Amino acid sequence: MYELGVVYRNIQRADRAATDSLAALGSATVHEAMGRVGLMKPYMRPIHAGNQVSGTAVTVLLHPGDNWMMHVVAEQIRPGDVVVAAVSADNCDGFFGDLLATSFQARGARALVIDAGVRDVKTLAEMGFPVWSKGISAKGTIKSTLGSVNIPVVCAGMIVHPGDAVVADDDGVVVVPSALVVQTLQAAAAREANEGDKRIKLAAGVLGLDMYKMREPLEKAGLRYVD
Amino acid sequence: MYELGVVYRNIQRADRAATDSLAALGSATVHEAMGRVGLMKPYMRPIHAGNQVSGTAVTVLLHPGDNWMMHVVAEQIRPGDVVVAAVSADNCDGFFGDLLATSFQARGARALVIDAGVRDVKTLAEMGFPVWSKGISAKGTIKSTLGSVNIPVVCAGMIVHPGDAVVADDDGVVVVPSALVVQTLQAAAAREANEGDKRIKLAAGVLGLDMYKMREPLEKAGLRYVD
Amino acid sequence: MYELGVVYRNIQRADRAATDSLAALGSATVHEAMGRVGLMKPYMRPIHAGNQVSGTAVTVLLHPGDNWMMHVVAEQIRPGDVVVAAVSADNCDGFFGDLLATSFQARGARALVIDAGVRDVKTLAEMGFPVWSKGISAKGTIKSTLGSVNIPVVCAGMIVHPGDAVVADDDGVVVVPSALVVQTLQAAAAREANEGDKRIKLAAGVLGLDMYKMREPLEKAGLRYVD
Amino acid sequence: MYELGVVYRNIQRADRAATDSLAALGSATVHEAMGRVGLMKPYMRPIHAGNQVSGTAVTVLLHPGDNWMMHVVAEQIRPGDVVVAAVSADNCDGFFGDLLATSFQARGARALVIDAGVRDVKTLAEMGFPVWSKGISAKGTIKSTLGSVNIPVVCAGMIVHPGDAVVADDDGVVVVPSALVVQTLQAAAAREANEGDKRIKLAAGVLGLDMYKMREPLEKAGLRYVD
Amino acid sequence: MYELGVVYRNIQRADRAATDSLAALGSATVHEAMGRVGLMKPYMRPIHAGNQVSGTAVTVLLHPGDNWMMHVVAEQIRPGDVVVAAVSADNCDGFFGDLLATSFQARGARALVIDAGVRDVKTLAEMGFPVWSKGISAKGTIKSTLGSVNIPVVCAGMIVHPGDAVVADDDGVVVVPSALVVQTLQAAAAREANEGDKRIKLAAGVLGLDMYKMREPLEKAGLRYVD
Amino acid sequence: MYELGVVYRNIQRADRAATDSLAALGSATVHEAMGRVGLMKPYMRPIHAGNQVSGTAVTVLLHPGDNWMMHVVAEQIRPGDVVVAAVSADNCDGFFGDLLATSFQARGARALVIDAGVRDVKTLAEMGFPVWSKGISAKGTIKSTLGSVNIPVVCAGMIVHPGDAVVADDDGVVVVPSALVVQTLQAAAAREANEGDKRIKLAAGVLGLDMYKMREPLEKAGLRYVD
Repeated sequence: MYELGVVYRNIQRADRAATDSLAALGSATVHEAMGRVGLMKPYMRPIHAGNQVSGTAVTVLLHPGDNWMMHVVAEQIRPGDVVVAAVSADNCDGFFGDLLATSFQARGARALVIDAGVRDVKTLAEMGFPVWSKGISAKGTIKSTLGSVNIPVVCAGMIVHPGDAVVADDDGVVVVPSALVVQTLQAAAAREANEGDKRIKLAAGVLGLDMYKMREPLEKAGLRYVD
Repeated sequence: MYELGVVYRNIQRADRAATDSLAALGSATVHEAMGRVGLMKPYMRPIHAGNQVSGTAVTVLLHPGDNWMMHVVAEQIRPGDVVVAAVSADNCDGFFGDLLATSFQARGARALVIDAGVRDVKTLAEMGFPVWSKGISAKGTIKSTLGSVNIPVVCAGMIVHPGDAVVADDDGVVVVPSALVVQTLQAAAAREANEGDKRIKLAAGVLGLDMYKMREPLEKAGLRYVD
Repeated sequence: MYELGVVYRNIQRADRAATDSLAALGSATVHEAMGRVGLMKPYMRPIHAGNQVSGTAVTVLLHPGDNWMMHVVAEQIRPGDVVVAAVSADNCDGFFGDLLATSFQARGARALVIDAGVRDVKTLAEMGFPVWSKGISAKGTIKSTLGSVNIPVVCAGMIVHPGDAVVADDDGVVVVPSALVVQTLQAAAAREANEGDKRIKLAAGVLGLDMYKMREPLEKAGLRYVD
Repeated sequence: MYELGVVYRNIQRADRAATDSLAALGSATVHEAMGRVGLMKPYMRPIHAGNQVSGTAVTVLLHPGDNWMMHVVAEQIRPGDVVVAAVSADNCDGFFGDLLATSFQARGARALVIDAGVRDVKTLAEMGFPVWSKGISAKGTIKSTLGSVNIPVVCAGMIVHPGDAVVADDDGVVVVPSALVVQTLQAAAAREANEGDKRIKLAAGVLGLDMYKMREPLEKAGLRYVD
Repeated sequence: MYELGVVYRNIQRADRAATDSLAALGSATVHEAMGRVGLMKPYMRPIHAGNQVSGTAVTVLLHPGDNWMMHVVAEQIRPGDVVVAAVSADNCDGFFGDLLATSFQARGARALVIDAGVRDVKTLAEMGFPVWSKGISAKGTIKSTLGSVNIPVVCAGMIVHPGDAVVADDDGVVVVPSALVVQTLQAAAAREANEGDKRIKLAAGVLGLDMYKMREPLEKAGLRYVD
Repeated sequence: MYELGVVYRNIQRADRAATDSLAALGSATVHEAMGRVGLMKPYMRPIHAGNQVSGTAVTVLLHPGDNWMMHVVAEQIRPGDVVVAAVSADNCDGFFGDLLATSFQARGARALVIDAGVRDVKTLAEMGFPVWSKGISAKGTIKSTLGSVNIPVVCAGMIVHPGDAVVADDDGVVVVPSALVVQTLQAAAAREANEGDKRIKLAAGVLGLDMYKMREPLEKAGLRYVD
């Protein structure tokens, strides 16, 4: 459920340094570090490949076909933020284009994550402003109905509280609650360190079956080989 | 984000009398009374038409293809509850069938709302146990991974806190935060009272254009009639 | 492309008697009689099974999440009409419920065909007002933006001109241009007459292979039987 | 891959008595008895609820928008068969209606399972001919391209060999290879026998947690309760 | 509804100069200039990013799995045309590949917009022939059934008359009726001119809230700020 | 239906030289050469454009959310193989990432074709390991349930036997039964040879209507031209 017509100005942003360090670890590793939760639905895709971003969430709740609140949220952006936009019903209109991107970028936003459509995607690429969205549509929107800014929202199936850390790359978008950012960073970094070693072994032809000691549990589970 | 492996036993359920009164008003009226928010995505459909239910939510978070926690949540059901089941990734397997329904019904559950599939739907109809789901599938599940019970979950795009009121009928499923149940009931009842009068006028041939005094705003907006 | 903000009051409705006779023939036969064209996309489904309707189209163009024009089109309905509602972008909100149905029914509308969602579906069934729609949703709409009434629209992939005949049943919705209604009725009736005879033969065990003389063309096309 | 333009007339049908006994057990139980495999994708839905059917498969491969081979397969039907129709590409046209149903029924077919659309659904219900399909569409088809009859096909994601047993009800459609029908029946019957007892216990309020002895493994997995 | 088996050779093409000038303005701006109508559904995507095209429509109606009429439409192409292909039912086969593209390009076509699938997409990119389509599929088609050329068609939800202007880029595909091309160009150019100024202000940190004077209407609508 | 818990170690791989030669011909030509069958559903897309691969299939059957068998199949890979992974129910989790890709690559696999999701897609591109999948998801999987290796599977609607040839490029994925690889190569090569000549004629402005001698059959079918 959602509170409408409210803008929360003071939000508690997740630890800046820890949040910023999450980008390099990537969404898959961070999601594993959290116990395989926190991931938005996989229909959320980057409009251009190759970006790897993390930041603190400022949230906005929109209504279908109405982007009025995108202008309201712009004022609440601080450098290092990622705008997370939810819509009160399924809608894929183009809520965001190059003008809003110019404004968001000027305010210090690192990216937009929106459970709806965007447009001007060629210009957005030229501007270097990363967007993860549900789709692309030239269809414009009206400015008529109040939503809210910096309330908890559901974006692509995941709860996002204002101030949470958001990690987005070509694999998807993960949300890390602000209280868990530091410990998640540690767990993710530990996983990452561990992976380099595994990669070398696997590249040398060692099998996961042996490296992870899977042969015995597989046999116990009843796996049989037929020649 | 989700906390895993936890069962909260003591939850604050919404006001019983107010929650129970919501069923008769229906999901559409309750959703309007809340300011047009609170609705789960419309892919949530009743497996059988004609049921109209309200109750207090006990929530459960499942993993794809794994219904272990459905047995855990059964113990937390009290009479008047509706079980709300979310899954940590898109999955439409049959997580629920006649055996679990027998258990849920014996515990006093009024319905299941599940963002996944169910099976034994013919028997469920005979048992009179209402279900709203994303789909129907004979595909069974395993019992292998821990989820949680009575944590806040996202079910079909909507945040559900344990204890919230849930209203479900042929139009869909609405979630009312427990703190807002009483005032929502009042607002919904007021809307409903108002509707009877309108229905009589419209049935007599009065136009909404006149009843709602829309002709002037339409003209101002620029509507023109061509003969 | 669409003209916005206009209501055409005088439309040329298809021949009344011919239009009314199409209902009994059904959408499949009428669609065949037209040369297998004219059918709306199959996602258009009746909200309740068993209705078989034909009527003259009054059309309305709506915007996503906005049902203002539904009140405008109500005034243009004459007995024997079917309201055909299109939306300027994909949207499945509930644009129509029991109050509008009461008004439409009072004006003489036979049905609604809408490329969007509807609500109050249980009451609509009790009222006996048939609806073919893209979906069901309790989500309400606002009244803010002008569309048009009685302009040509695209509904579920098919062009509908005001005054065209519409035939709808459990198999789908077919549109017959008003200029072709009489000849289509004749062709459809001829097909239908022909079918009774075929049904008797097939029920007696005669194979379509023989009745339609398909054995020779199948052999020519290279079909071979293996024992 | 598919062999085109061939009709296999002599197929080895699964054990008749065992095949016929599968219907009463239902798709969910049979699917479990097979080790949770064999199920078609859940988009395969009955066009009318309440039917529970089993039979031996005669298969047909069609091309998009072309139902020529439906007439060819009709001749190969024997009493107790279920026709399983696959299409060489995604297509939801109406490949089957009341005339073909009359013919199939006259030949002794119990049902049609088709990975495409059908039409005349109201008449099919009146005739009592059950169909499981991907959709409903009034759109007719042409008769122009050769497919095959009684070759192995993929229907809704599942391999079906001619002569396999097919079990279909409101929960979905399961395929049992002919060589496994007898043992599957035994396993399914054993499951079913076992379920009656469980149902009585659960109805009496015994929890699955206790009945299935889940408390210990849940605790080992780390589940904790918070009051 | 569609007329079948006809090729209209003489069509009235939209103003050449105005049509050609629309490309640089892009689909989003042109769609806004038309009052936010005219856009095809957003599932129409470029098979390769970065193209920005406008041209006059020659239309073709195809049947599922049958591309015979693509050869017929080729003859009707004149330099500066965009071929707009509709299909009489949903189908995503590959109706178009490098050979047809060679022919279309030789005739002077600028692009293909097709509500179906295409193939040879790597070669199409090398040839520099832009395509907007519903999908990509290696599946070939037959040449068996008549459609029509240069009749009004519905492509991806939008009516296209032969001779209309079509504007396509990474944001989508917009159709401008030939009678409105000149005035739409003027309106779109005016919008565009206006945008450069706004972009500079927004880049300098001016908020849309102030630039568009939204603070007062937001306050009137009831927006409140919480510190 | 599927046999579970079995790994077939000795499979008959398709002719190596013929299999390897298929890549250059591409999926569309190979699919035509087989009589327009053998193609996986078009939702199977390359995660990166531009790869053109052929190889011999080693198959693996997985369960939703469980990639245990991916480690088992790794051991069965021989140089020149393509791993074809099916799942027993619809699931789009990320079953495969850079570690498994390192292992597969070390064993000599040329590509992965998976009817599910993958992750680490940026790294996969850097490694030059091609993947065709149903989607991309950062969501990880567990290792808990047995599937099988080198049994016949259904992947994206197509039967794949271990040892079959697989051809994959930007147009899709085609499966060639091992017994047909040599003759399919010949037929595909013949088509390809033929196409170069056609391309030259079409580029010179010759119409397909004339080159394929379609004018007469079109006229016979009733096509008429209107000036």
